[in-house]
Amino acid sequence: MATCEGSEARAALRRSVLNRVPPLLTDLYQFTMAYAYWRAGRHNEPAVFELFFRDNPFGGGFSLIAGLSDCLLFLQNFAFSDDGERVCTALHTCEITLVRISNPSMLLSPLSLVCSNAARFRLAAGPRRRLMEMGLRRAQGPDGGLTASRYTYIGGFDLTSNALAGRLFGIPVAGTMAHSYVTSFSSLEEVWPQTLVPCGGGGPIDVICLVKGWLGRVCQLLGSKTSLVREGELAAFLSYAIAYPQNFLPVIDSYSVSCSGLLCFCAVALALYELQYRPLGVRLDSGDLSRQSLEVRRVFKECSQHFSVPQFESLIIVGTNSISEQSLAELNKKDNEIDVVGVGTHLVTCTRQPSLGCVYKLIEVRGRPRMKMSEDPEKSTLPGRKSVYRLLDADGHPQMDLICLSEEPAPKAAVSLNCFPLGLNTTLQTVTPAQVTSLRLDVFTCGQITFPLNSASESRERAQMSLQTLHPHHKRLQEPHDYTVALSERLHSLVSDITKGNSKGSNFLLSN
Amino acid sequence: MATCEGSEARAALRRSVLNRVPPLLTDLYQFTMAYAYWRAGRHNEPAVFELFFRDNPFGGGFSLIAGLSDCLLFLQNFAFSDDGERVCTALHTCEITLVRISNPSMLLSPLSLVCSNAARFRLAAGPRRRLMEMGLRRAQGPDGGLTASRYTYIGGFDLTSNALAGRLFGIPVAGTMAHSYVTSFSSLEEVWPQTLVPCGGGGPIDVICLVKGWLGRVCQLLGSKTSLVREGELAAFLSYAIAYPQNFLPVIDSYSVSCSGLLCFCAVALALYELQYRPLGVRLDSGDLSRQSLEVRRVFKECSQHFSVPQFESLIIVGTNSISEQSLAELNKKDNEIDVVGVGTHLVTCTRQPSLGCVYKLIEVRGRPRMKMSEDPEKSTLPGRKSVYRLLDADGHPQMDLICLSEEPAPKAAVSLNCFPLGLNTTLQTVTPAQVTSLRLDVFTCGQITFPLNSASESRERAQMSLQTLHPHHKRLQEPHDYTVALSERLHSLVSDITKGNSKGSNFLLSN
Repeated sequence: MATCEGSEARAALRRSVLNRVPPLLTDLYQFTMAYAYWRAGRHNEPAVFELFFRDNPFGGGFSLIAGLSDCLLFLQNFAFSDDGERVCTALHTCEITLVRISNPSMLLSPLSLVCSNAARFRLAAGPRRRLMEMGLRRAQGPDGGLTASRYTYIGGFDLTSNALAGRLFGIPVAGTMAHSYVTSFSSLEEVWPQTLVPCGGGGPIDVICLVKGWLGRVCQLLGSKTSLVREGELAAFLSYAIAYPQNFLPVIDSYSVSCSGLLCFCAVALALYELQYRPLGVRLDSGDLSRQSLEVRRVFKECSQHFSVPQFESLIIVGTNSISEQSLAELNKKDNEIDVVGVGTHLVTCTRQPSLGCVYKLIEVRGRPRMKMSEDPEKSTLPGRKSVYRLLDADGHPQMDLICLSEEPAPKAAVSLNCFPLGLNTTLQTVTPAQVTSLRLDVFTCGQITFPLNSASESRERAQMSLQTLHPHHKRLQEPHDYTVALSERLHSLVSDITKGNSKGSNFLLSN
Repeated sequence: MATCEGSEARAALRRSVLNRVPPLLTDLYQFTMAYAYWRAGRHNEPAVFELFFRDNPFGGGFSLIAGLSDCLLFLQNFAFSDDGERVCTALHTCEITLVRISNPSMLLSPLSLVCSNAARFRLAAGPRRRLMEMGLRRAQGPDGGLTASRYTYIGGFDLTSNALAGRLFGIPVAGTMAHSYVTSFSSLEEVWPQTLVPCGGGGPIDVICLVKGWLGRVCQLLGSKTSLVREGELAAFLSYAIAYPQNFLPVIDSYSVSCSGLLCFCAVALALYELQYRPLGVRLDSGDLSRQSLEVRRVFKECSQHFSVPQFESLIIVGTNSISEQSLAELNKKDNEIDVVGVGTHLVTCTRQPSLGCVYKLIEVRGRPRMKMSEDPEKSTLPGRKSVYRLLDADGHPQMDLICLSEEPAPKAAVSLNCFPLGLNTTLQTVTPAQVTSLRLDVFTCGQITFPLNSASESRERAQMSLQTLHPHHKRLQEPHDYTVALSERLHSLVSDITKGNSKGSNFLLSN
């Protein structure tokens, strides 16, 4: 298990692949617009953009927004190379404009989506079961896989299969063998060396003999036929156990769990116990995981009692077979003995909704609010520079996020206020928050990051604590209550004024 | 438009981000298995793995497999750095084993998926309409976006918005402005410079005056009110036209297409024509694209006739509004005037099926076949080293792919053969192909690529030609005929033998 914490993690983060994103990796229109702004002499005008999304993903009641540190590092390192990128001089002048227009959405959107997805798996799994991310091969390429490991850990996963993610981000890494390791063996003659020194010391023991003896006893105990056991599977398990006597956790479904894999495991594990080693458990990767896990646990208990090996009954059972949020929830409804669940495809590709749909819109130029209306009312933007406050109820649960113009005074605890919940047919509502917290953070000033960059485990803790404050009716996975986001009265008036053309935001042309 | 072809494209490809994938970016079990193989002295044994998928994506009848050149370049460049990666010496010995086990799936799977998705959009769009990829901000991070641009182009797209993809791969790049450019303007006073020199030469002309004049005439012609026109929108269009008088294609839905955007466009475009420039067209990004495109074309025709500007009626109309394969197919059923369709989210995230599910399995060790069975019959693998032949019917359409063991003789044209179509309850079938082609390609020998690396446009041509040979009933997007993949009699017998334990592939344990 690779670990790196604190400053080491932060240094590793800086080396991450995301910091090598070429500036040219953006939409052409960012460059055409930048030139047009420069040509009109507007490239030095202060402009404010807002990144937001319109709906929580997966039909849920919450989202985890993740990836700020990646964005900040990208911003800090952003530069066109003079030789490598043959872009015109004007672009150097507009560098920051470009970044502000284009890249936060590209970074934050997939990271927040996969982090929120992981949080839902965490809730579906319950607090006891450990979750392992194993989606590297299902991601959209290398950096998609690496960031998925980091952000699913933050979302609540416990382990990853991704070796580089472990090294860079200090995430606990796990993994032992694939089916190919098992099927690569066909005979006990391929096992080498054929001896193992007991954990407590002593002369090397002939493990072939030892394991054959245990297999016979296990088959007798369970009423199974040794003649149905695959010799290659026994050889593979034994060979792996000789290499890793303290890390023995084979995949046991390469041929048949009950006729071969489970029997081979018990034989090798009992041999390891005899030599004072501690095997870890088994992995199931096909079929009905719940049913099989119950059978496996029953066999573990029988062996534990019959052979007087108390630890045998609490060996770990890992389940990995196209687990989705739904199949995980169903797993919880059935009796089962699965301790660790591995999730790949449905976690990293976010099958239920593969895009968060973040948008990045201009809201202010030279201190004047800007608004886009569009032909679809729900695609309108909210004009002006804003502050956002989270209003908490008497139990400390968030009840509403209130969007105000930044020049407005902050709402006060125990003081009632009027607001307009977001939506197409919005009406005035009055609320009295028990507590108010500001959600605004200043993170980047004068080209420097002014916000502590968290390690993956620090971010994970923060995210899990934040989720805990959420009211259960917002947190539940199916049909959650909508969380209210509301506009202040002043912001609501500004929207009306601009829509009617009564504001400097975007006035109508005076008749000429 | 950036272009780079032939050897330049290949050189660019080598610089692509995929070649910088760190070797440690793989699942931990690749390392644990590599060490166990090495410890057992098996790391030099020749092993053969097979990459495959079980079902065509999106419920379709075909797939485009893409990304071979990226895999080969990765393989050629693969090395652990001695200083950067503190991995044990054993891994250096096992390097190639590792690559063969882990990485092809990570690269080929997402690339083939997005390429196949693009091919379906191409078929849905029909041959006339041009397709533009604009999914960078919706991809799972930077390299996902870059590869999506390359592989959707190969799948049949015509343009990309991604500037770096244009530079690296020679894909035509397009893009002019976002809504933020439009909403950043509020008044004609912000337009600078306020003059434009006519295309044919002459003194600078006051364009503010010129455009106001044209706006009046356009509004009069169409019976529209100038008082509903947004001054900021007119200013933005004019400012952009001054910077790019030959590349004028604004987004016209920032406020209201019919009350403001379309009128502003006509006024500025007519002014450009008066100065002998050629505007390009408009982009619609919200609302009912079909209906709006008809209105826009009608206005273009009216202006064309009334102001005697023949080219005005054939200006380009671009549509970009959450286009999916289904909405594209529906667009084709309605009357519309959209010339170019831009697709983002649904193209690059492959919403309908975000993962191809490629698997990479061991099939032979030291010349002996290997097979995994598993608890799910459909997760079994096919043992042994193979050749695959494509059997064509009398019309030249592929009718079946036949999987044989590599030592079998190739099937012959006009000679009948027996085979077993893949499936759970497979029965013997006899076919007589009109033609036979071998699908096997040798691409990598002794650490060197032995296959010409194609530029994106060469691969695109090849993919489109290959799709053309497909029978329409396999190519149709809804309820296509299943394409048959069959096993030779000998391969079918080998599967039976191993399943029954009668083969050296994975024999049962002899009673001890």
